[in-house]
Amino acid sequence: MKKSALQIARAAYQPKLPVDLSGFVKVVEGEPTQSVADQEEIKALFPNTYGLPELRFEKNPVQTVGKPVNVGVILSGGQAPGGHNVICGLFDGIKKINKSSRLYGFLMGPGGLVDHKYVELTAEVIDEYRNTGGFDIIGSGRTKLEKQEQFDKGLEILKKLDITALVIIGGDDSNTNAAVLAEYYKQIGAGVQVIGCPKTIDGDLKNEVIEASFGFDTATKVYSELIGNIQRDCFSAKKYWHFIKLMGRSASHIALECALQTQPNICIISEEVEAENQTLQDVVNYIADIVARRAANGENFGTVLIPEGLIEFIPAMKNLIGQLNDLLAKNPEVATLSPAEQREWVLSHLTEKNASVYASLPEGVARQLTLDRDPHGNVQVSLIETEKLLSEMVARRLEEMRKEGKYNGKFSALHHFFGYEGRCAAPSNFDADYCYALGYNAAMLINAGVTGYMSSLRNLTAPSVQWLAGGIPITMMFNMERRHGEMKPVIQKALVKLDGKPFQRFAAKRADWAMSTSYVFPGPIQYFGPAEVCDQPTRTLYYEQLDK
Amino acid sequence: MKKSALQIARAAYQPKLPVDLSGFVKVVEGEPTQSVADQEEIKALFPNTYGLPELRFEKNPVQTVGKPVNVGVILSGGQAPGGHNVICGLFDGIKKINKSSRLYGFLMGPGGLVDHKYVELTAEVIDEYRNTGGFDIIGSGRTKLEKQEQFDKGLEILKKLDITALVIIGGDDSNTNAAVLAEYYKQIGAGVQVIGCPKTIDGDLKNEVIEASFGFDTATKVYSELIGNIQRDCFSAKKYWHFIKLMGRSASHIALECALQTQPNICIISEEVEAENQTLQDVVNYIADIVARRAANGENFGTVLIPEGLIEFIPAMKNLIGQLNDLLAKNPEVATLSPAEQREWVLSHLTEKNASVYASLPEGVARQLTLDRDPHGNVQVSLIETEKLLSEMVARRLEEMRKEGKYNGKFSALHHFFGYEGRCAAPSNFDADYCYALGYNAAMLINAGVTGYMSSLRNLTAPSVQWLAGGIPITMMFNMERRHGEMKPVIQKALVKLDGKPFQRFAAKRADWAMSTSYVFPGPIQYFGPAEVCDQPTRTLYYEQLDK
Repeated sequence: MKKSALQIARAAYQPKLPVDLSGFVKVVEGEPTQSVADQEEIKALFPNTYGLPELRFEKNPVQTVGKPVNVGVILSGGQAPGGHNVICGLFDGIKKINKSSRLYGFLMGPGGLVDHKYVELTAEVIDEYRNTGGFDIIGSGRTKLEKQEQFDKGLEILKKLDITALVIIGGDDSNTNAAVLAEYYKQIGAGVQVIGCPKTIDGDLKNEVIEASFGFDTATKVYSELIGNIQRDCFSAKKYWHFIKLMGRSASHIALECALQTQPNICIISEEVEAENQTLQDVVNYIADIVARRAANGENFGTVLIPEGLIEFIPAMKNLIGQLNDLLAKNPEVATLSPAEQREWVLSHLTEKNASVYASLPEGVARQLTLDRDPHGNVQVSLIETEKLLSEMVARRLEEMRKEGKYNGKFSALHHFFGYEGRCAAPSNFDADYCYALGYNAAMLINAGVTGYMSSLRNLTAPSVQWLAGGIPITMMFNMERRHGEMKPVIQKALVKLDGKPFQRFAAKRADWAMSTSYVFPGPIQYFGPAEVCDQPTRTLYYEQLDK
Repeated sequence: MKKSALQIARAAYQPKLPVDLSGFVKVVEGEPTQSVADQEEIKALFPNTYGLPELRFEKNPVQTVGKPVNVGVILSGGQAPGGHNVICGLFDGIKKINKSSRLYGFLMGPGGLVDHKYVELTAEVIDEYRNTGGFDIIGSGRTKLEKQEQFDKGLEILKKLDITALVIIGGDDSNTNAAVLAEYYKQIGAGVQVIGCPKTIDGDLKNEVIEASFGFDTATKVYSELIGNIQRDCFSAKKYWHFIKLMGRSASHIALECALQTQPNICIISEEVEAENQTLQDVVNYIADIVARRAANGENFGTVLIPEGLIEFIPAMKNLIGQLNDLLAKNPEVATLSPAEQREWVLSHLTEKNASVYASLPEGVARQLTLDRDPHGNVQVSLIETEKLLSEMVARRLEEMRKEGKYNGKFSALHHFFGYEGRCAAPSNFDADYCYALGYNAAMLINAGVTGYMSSLRNLTAPSVQWLAGGIPITMMFNMERRHGEMKPVIQKALVKLDGKPFQRFAAKRADWAMSTSYVFPGPIQYFGPAEVCDQPTRTLYYEQLDK
């Protein structure tokens, strides 16, 4: 493919490794660890990989030549900026250990391991992908690596290629599965180490020991660029309310981070809506109230950030959707009724509470809830255009308020949804450095002979040369959760903490931002400018570290 | 408002003025001009401002101190990156002429002149807005300045503030009105010069003598950044077709420029659709055919760029909409019928040809054509989600092809619409320089004592120091066109020329881009990097200048 001028210039960027990783490293073992909860159950499930110590790497004044190693790498799940740099760092790391080491990439996600689809990643290939966005070097996929026959099938090709270590780059689910795989290969004496790397733009894979997942920094900066541009337009034209939905179904970190960067008039945080047991109408009233108060000041414009997952966090909506799933699965004939008959049927079969929620929805959305089903027969919540749903209900509410004499303005809404726009951007300096170091560090974990570890860098708000490198036993992040009706050991998903500093900061400011129009315009990611422009970590990371 | 780190760093950028404007200037008069068409009619309508000479500015070795001047400035119409720099350049220009000069901004567009809403723009204010996006310094608006009573009302405040020159920053309509105003003020001896500046992200205000309108460079770079990111995602995931609609209702310059920058699989150019008298189904079949051919290669993914104005360029749709406007205006009772009755009524009242087009549309779109009307009772074409309409019809066509054994793939579509995301971005180096020079140059035109001129810079593919500065009589760009049933003198809108080099380049490449996946990922606008990254003009401008 033809390279853009920026790609060519950016290829020359040399990610800055932490000092600890800059030469030969030595391993410092910490105390044995335990899982964050359900210790006995998890210990029983992971007899070979539970309770391992945290590892720290330090600079080793003594030259140590490692043995050559063949390594496999997999990209799992949704794209996140920096994935290529993890692979580049891993490549440079295993070559640093021994020049004869080799790297194989499995194609289109975990399925490539199972189906034996792979490619060797040589220096020539690697050099084409340094500091680029995308996962196209080997592709990614959503196949879940969780069954023993998959593990055994994968082992065949690992043996054939003499691969003794596998690096899985993925989110919480993929890293959960990496730990299960590590345990299994250890148990059967397969002689294959498994190392995980924390990826997800959603920011929901982080905890006490993993400060951030990669991609979040770049993606939120792209979204904030766009939100800032829209806010500047909004403030210039002074005639529209922009409803902006942001990717991230299971947590509102992206919306919160973008709010901290751009200071919109309104940002909804799903975790708060759930904690306060708000209804959809509560959320609508909250927005309509601010619209009306701004209108009273002559300001018929504003911006609203909405997390993609909002609907599923509203307890009343969750209940309604749950009952609809049940009802419609048991009565497939309802699908054949006319829209009006269907509505009547649904209303007469729902509980009183759910029926009243259903009746309060705009007709188009209510219909969508009974029409679009996924292959398992479930309502496809992700197809609901929450940003339009909210603006439509706000418009309705404002008309009520107008009749009550509480509103006298104009309300004209525009809608945006940002997700795919940011997942494959070229990584920011932070993500370029972080990812490269994660990959390089994974090579050091391989050299240390361990398995079931996640590559870890800490102290991330400091310049990258001061980051602390090491490994965290993945089982340390586990607890037991019900998934598809079964209790399973999984990495806890990190939701927005309402008592954490990032949310607290937002909560302290939002009343002011709602009324005073305090927009910030961050502009696009810069790769070449002054450090204060190019090297800032996210506000979320900054405030979280203040907590420590 | 709190400034972002980028804004603070970018404020220090000093736009590079052309050498000709870098000191004191002297005026070189060219030959008398004439309008591009309808010379006699336009000469009769503009007895005082027709046939003026083109002006060129050259560096003047002799110091010339001008007289102080009070100047008014107006931002008219949609936001475009760089508007603030025009005003900054104008301010610095009139201060260079004489330190006692003063600048007044009329608020929220031409309406501010009529309603006497204004603010003085002092050095302190100006310095807050250098190299920033948006029009928020004084706001913009869409009031058309075209009636004599508006001109007279405006003159009152101009006289009161002792303003003797007015600069109107706007698109083709606003500059048309600027020429009418210039003629009127000249005719009545008002003693007020009127100067225009060419603005529009759409790129449709340009001609033999105006090489580009400002904002197009920055806006298309923002859209191309996003398209590039989406294409990288598309190529990594290999499972979606992205339908991307781009702002620009009356011409496809934006779509064409973005296609040249990003090399998508498909880009529709409205002007070509119209010239070839294509139907909506022709466009759909063209897309479906490429989808099927890619699927045959195992590639069930791709990108399609769609200009916002497409529907109105399809002759059959234009006819249908025309008849619907007539029918529904004459039969308002149709609005009260049920959707099914309405459909039947419409089908039975349309001509056979229009009825068959109407029947071929997805039901939702057909319904939208009869439901949503603007205040004049017309169909609101801009509300039609063309990107969804096309993907829905493509899906339907693919199912037919599957039955015919001509398609055997998966088709999953995602939709995007980019417009507001780019209109208020911080100007690229090109737009920052171009806008600043346009404003500074407007000050020189004021000092030259002329009226009815547009500020002009040429040789724009050369470094900005080599640009040629001067003024073009606006009447030179005029022809007579029917507008709202009346023949009027207007600046011709520049559509994509099918025999021009930009389109020819695209046409020569598109068959290759359709099949071979030749995506380019331009990345975000850079303000600080190497020149080949930061200082490239648009591909459109580059190829257009090759034509000369």
